[in-house]
Amino acid sequence: MSIDRSGAVVGSRCVVGSGRAVGVDIGGTKTIAALVDGAGGVIQRAAAATPGPDGPDAILATVCRLVHEVGDGADPVGVGVGSAGVIDHRTGVVRSATSVLRDWAGTPVRERISDATGLPVRVVNDVHAHALGEAWIGAAAGAHSLLMVAVGTGVGASYVGGGEVMFGAHDVAGHLGHIPVAAAAGRPCVCGRVGHLEAVAAGPALAASYSARVRRQVTTVQQLVADAAAGSDIARSVLDEGAQALGAAVGGTVNLLDPQVVVIGGGVVGAGDAWWAPMERALREQLLPATVDVRVCRSRLGADAALAGAASLMLLNGEESR
Amino acid sequence: MSIDRSGAVVGSRCVVGSGRAVGVDIGGTKTIAALVDGAGGVIQRAAAATPGPDGPDAILATVCRLVHEVGDGADPVGVGVGSAGVIDHRTGVVRSATSVLRDWAGTPVRERISDATGLPVRVVNDVHAHALGEAWIGAAAGAHSLLMVAVGTGVGASYVGGGEVMFGAHDVAGHLGHIPVAAAAGRPCVCGRVGHLEAVAAGPALAASYSARVRRQVTTVQQLVADAAAGSDIARSVLDEGAQALGAAVGGTVNLLDPQVVVIGGGVVGAGDAWWAPMERALREQLLPATVDVRVCRSRLGADAALAGAASLMLLNGEESR
Repeated sequence: MSIDRSGAVVGSRCVVGSGRAVGVDIGGTKTIAALVDGAGGVIQRAAAATPGPDGPDAILATVCRLVHEVGDGADPVGVGVGSAGVIDHRTGVVRSATSVLRDWAGTPVRERISDATGLPVRVVNDVHAHALGEAWIGAAAGAHSLLMVAVGTGVGASYVGGGEVMFGAHDVAGHLGHIPVAAAAGRPCVCGRVGHLEAVAAGPALAASYSARVRRQVTTVQQLVADAAAGSDIARSVLDEGAQALGAAVGGTVNLLDPQVVVIGGGVVGAGDAWWAPMERALREQLLPATVDVRVCRSRLGADAALAGAASLMLLNGEESR
Repeated sequence: MSIDRSGAVVGSRCVVGSGRAVGVDIGGTKTIAALVDGAGGVIQRAAAATPGPDGPDAILATVCRLVHEVGDGADPVGVGVGSAGVIDHRTGVVRSATSVLRDWAGTPVRERISDATGLPVRVVNDVHAHALGEAWIGAAAGAHSLLMVAVGTGVGASYVGGGEVMFGAHDVAGHLGHIPVAAAAGRPCVCGRVGHLEAVAAGPALAASYSARVRRQVTTVQQLVADAAAGSDIARSVLDEGAQALGAAVGGTVNLLDPQVVVIGGGVVGAGDAWWAPMERALREQLLPATVDVRVCRSRLGADAALAGAASLMLLNGEESR
């Protein structure tokens, strides 16, 4: 990860290993803040339910309360935030977001938190924050490059090379869930298009597919996994189908981006080997001779990856253009 | 494109607009060298058949002869080379290559040309060179980022963001031809896998598919295009199928990488609107609301893009790590 701090905008230049920053993870249901040291260690943490339905003022008040809780007295160099939604990483304004966070789109998160805390703030999408954490101190520490894939309510991704996130022209890079895949042919996607990976591989897609086949309402992947473990062939086949679609798409993406490490996280990975084994098999079936040595592993840090990654925005790099 | 020259290895730091460099494009059939000025203009050019079957010594002798032809007396700052094959961009050694260039894999191209010419040399894959040219002075000049796609004997790609090529961990990044797509289901790919884009969208795949359906040997896309223009429904449907598969895959890749511009080149684009129209339609059918404004255009510079892009390796950036 780059530690060149020329052009730093934080006002205070920090030194790796001595500075501390607050990392914040704003998720659809929970918001966590942590005081993170220069080695990526979490010193203290605080969490609260995200008051998503109450809108931006309530969400930001929660964030600021948690920042004070972990940061007061610790003299943090700033606040790094990973948030659900598409975030303009330069301005810290939300470009678009799930309806779970009411009116989140358009919120100037960076400015609002900075005004309230008096600290410099940077904001990125939560999958990017997670990837930065894995690249810094997690499964991809020391690696050339990382493809982080998060499979949960949606299918998101983030590519980090040389410590830098690939953000794209509209901060949209990483929408792996919206590539066309054979297994999703004809299925409507939440984005309005048809046949995208997310429509067959995300958690809600697995639950919906299983519900349709067993003719009863199953709303969680956990139930599907429990049924597969209890011997349901239908449950197993639904898991298989989603896992294989995800694996094949990620395998193709490895050929396209040539990351050294792939880290896969998100709620669906909690399904365990019944999902992981067919996923990794399908992934490896796609690989070119030159990419067969790609390392594929589960997220090692869990929630702490996003917190450390968010904090790293202030601890490791102050460049505006990152 | 970065013009920071700290860490330059070329010995002579050049200034955009005053330096000159030689750009070389080593293709399967033809090798071209050009003297390129600091604005990307071609001052002089020379070409010869690539003696592929004769092996590395003959190929390199041809390259060096052409470099002297255009460079002697012009005091070029160095030689930038775009070559067919997978090239280690740090060492300039060929990692792997098509059999059209006999024994090309393993050749230390950078060292050999540098020893023979006394000039600093850098070498990248030819699609990367083409992309660098389009990003510098072509269809993506001034853009945030570019996805270059070359559809010919194979399907290759290159992503350039902020003037930097994404090379990947093994210099393999850009193998867009090796992502799985529905239209190629069951078709063997040259890489040894099954169901990849290249097996349905590259020139040879189009010719093979058409040959099989009309039960006569058609070896060129030109013939297929001529037959389509003459009213053959089969020819048109084969072009359509390849174009749609390519377009859908590129559309998904736009959602994944969020480039500002997509430039599509290569021999198959020569098929014209009968190919381009279904390709672009399929591409745009995949786009997220946030990526619908992506600019999609034909390569503007043709062969000169690869020459200018190769020369830019010496003219615009001397960093070893690029």
